[in-house]
Amino acid sequence: MVTSRRIVLAARPEGAVQLSNFRTEEVELPPVQDGQFLVGGNFLSLDPYMRGRMDDRKSYAAPVPVGGVMEGEIIGTVLESRHPGYSVGEKVAGRLGWQSHAITDGAGMVKLDDRFKPLSTAVGVLGMPGLTAYSGLLTLGKPKPGETVVVAAATGPVGSLVGQIAKIYGARAVGIAGGPEKCAYALEELGFDAMIDHRSPTFAQELAAACPNGIDVYFELVGGAILQAVLPLLNNFARVPVCGLIAQYDGAPSEGVDNLPAAMRIVLSRSVMMRGFIVGEYWDQRPKFLDEVSQWIAEGKVKFREDIVQGLDNAPEAFMGMLKGKNFGKMVVAID
Amino acid sequence: MVTSRRIVLAARPEGAVQLSNFRTEEVELPPVQDGQFLVGGNFLSLDPYMRGRMDDRKSYAAPVPVGGVMEGEIIGTVLESRHPGYSVGEKVAGRLGWQSHAITDGAGMVKLDDRFKPLSTAVGVLGMPGLTAYSGLLTLGKPKPGETVVVAAATGPVGSLVGQIAKIYGARAVGIAGGPEKCAYALEELGFDAMIDHRSPTFAQELAAACPNGIDVYFELVGGAILQAVLPLLNNFARVPVCGLIAQYDGAPSEGVDNLPAAMRIVLSRSVMMRGFIVGEYWDQRPKFLDEVSQWIAEGKVKFREDIVQGLDNAPEAFMGMLKGKNFGKMVVAID
Repeated sequence: MVTSRRIVLAARPEGAVQLSNFRTEEVELPPVQDGQFLVGGNFLSLDPYMRGRMDDRKSYAAPVPVGGVMEGEIIGTVLESRHPGYSVGEKVAGRLGWQSHAITDGAGMVKLDDRFKPLSTAVGVLGMPGLTAYSGLLTLGKPKPGETVVVAAATGPVGSLVGQIAKIYGARAVGIAGGPEKCAYALEELGFDAMIDHRSPTFAQELAAACPNGIDVYFELVGGAILQAVLPLLNNFARVPVCGLIAQYDGAPSEGVDNLPAAMRIVLSRSVMMRGFIVGEYWDQRPKFLDEVSQWIAEGKVKFREDIVQGLDNAPEAFMGMLKGKNFGKMVVAID
Repeated sequence: MVTSRRIVLAARPEGAVQLSNFRTEEVELPPVQDGQFLVGGNFLSLDPYMRGRMDDRKSYAAPVPVGGVMEGEIIGTVLESRHPGYSVGEKVAGRLGWQSHAITDGAGMVKLDDRFKPLSTAVGVLGMPGLTAYSGLLTLGKPKPGETVVVAAATGPVGSLVGQIAKIYGARAVGIAGGPEKCAYALEELGFDAMIDHRSPTFAQELAAACPNGIDVYFELVGGAILQAVLPLLNNFARVPVCGLIAQYDGAPSEGVDNLPAAMRIVLSRSVMMRGFIVGEYWDQRPKFLDEVSQWIAEGKVKFREDIVQGLDNAPEAFMGMLKGKNFGKMVVAID
């Protein structure tokens, strides 16, 4: 019998996520049936969208039930197979959840070929975050040469690729990140034209100064105070792909001024387009995305950085840190 | 010499528009030059967008300068012509401002043929408001059979056509208006499937009940409290063409809860598209729009209503009333 070590949602968070929202369990898996195969996990991807699944709120996806395995994508190895399409030893990826072993019939699984070097790129620059950046920026953002593209979380897996693709398309890339180390990395390694530290007390003024021609594309990952600073800088016909709101995920309703009327006035008076999206909508772009981005990596036009934590049991703490911006690069858990 | 009676912006409004923001002047016009013609105004169109021109705020259009003639579209008759393309007696329309007479070189003017019956339709159902409804709904809103389309100011020139075109396209049309008389008219004459009175204390609940399958298209004309009631009802992949925010035009910043974070969460989690637009962007659709809508009028599929006030001097008061929803149908001033 195979035992799967798994992390389940012990309780829904109230405000910030805490360790007590998670629980580790061990479960004996049933025998592999015809048409199924057993995957042993190598890497678990940690992504901001998972925070949304912990809440019970109307969304594009059902919430994780209390007591259910936390949702997430795994890179793994086929350990046993009674499925004609999968052989022992093959590398695969799919949404098998925060666990060490899982049995699947292959639905939603992809095979990983030699392009995924290292293998962890399959959940990073060549995985869901990469496709999110690529499809959202090119399909909704549509950057043109000479335009200004702004993205926060600029050293994360989505933001870093947004900035680098903006550069490839001839746009000016302005990034936002927390702290001098991340800002220096994005300027020097990723090739952003300007980086603003959102912790600076003069953040909004610095952002305005870094965007002398206004903002044509704002790739929204964070919301909150950064969105407030961006809105007045949007140009006529600006595009705002809305991909994430990490600064708001824990948020209680904010008291004070109602910023919605002013935001709507900007949308109206500048013919701004805002569009929420999830990567599943653009899944059909994956083959072209893999070809192009792996080529850009080979040519040195796209760089990426991973932040790998050892041990499945450390996933909750790594996840909580990521929501606070403590990671530096794509957050991945190496499953023991 | 010809004297033009005109209404100028005496002072920018602070909050609600007041009569003291306007001043009537009489000016002697210069002689008509080669390539020019003189227009005598028959009708002046009053439209909510004019409120925005009274403020000095970054927008798609420059503000009216203090002391300048109020911006607006006129329907008129060519009284004298030294322009090869225009003959005395022809009917024309264009943005000549709030005045009785004007000299123009024809830039931005259109000729009015027999389709414009009565002539005032050229600034209403067959004019800028009509094209706004037609292009914004069909290009951005894209209603599909069985979907739910919601629009406020539903007896106004834009809202009434949005609802009727939604019906022609097989969608369910839910309208919002102020008072039982307007609601009854929209239900009985315009063919809306449901009408909600925004003055009702249970407005939000009534709107939800009238949209049992949620909202697929919200054609935004008003903002404020109506937008707040609409947001929670938006479906996945809902489209929100943002055309006006009349409830907010006079508005000071609202204290209380910040509604922007929750609105962004809805945009994100339901893949909502919001897009500000102005009719000028879709000017190339005008020939098709005129053909289709005049055909729909002839077939009885589209009805319209005009609210005509006599006398240019009454334009400021009629405009102020329109901003408060006192008009019933397209607001037009018959110039004496």
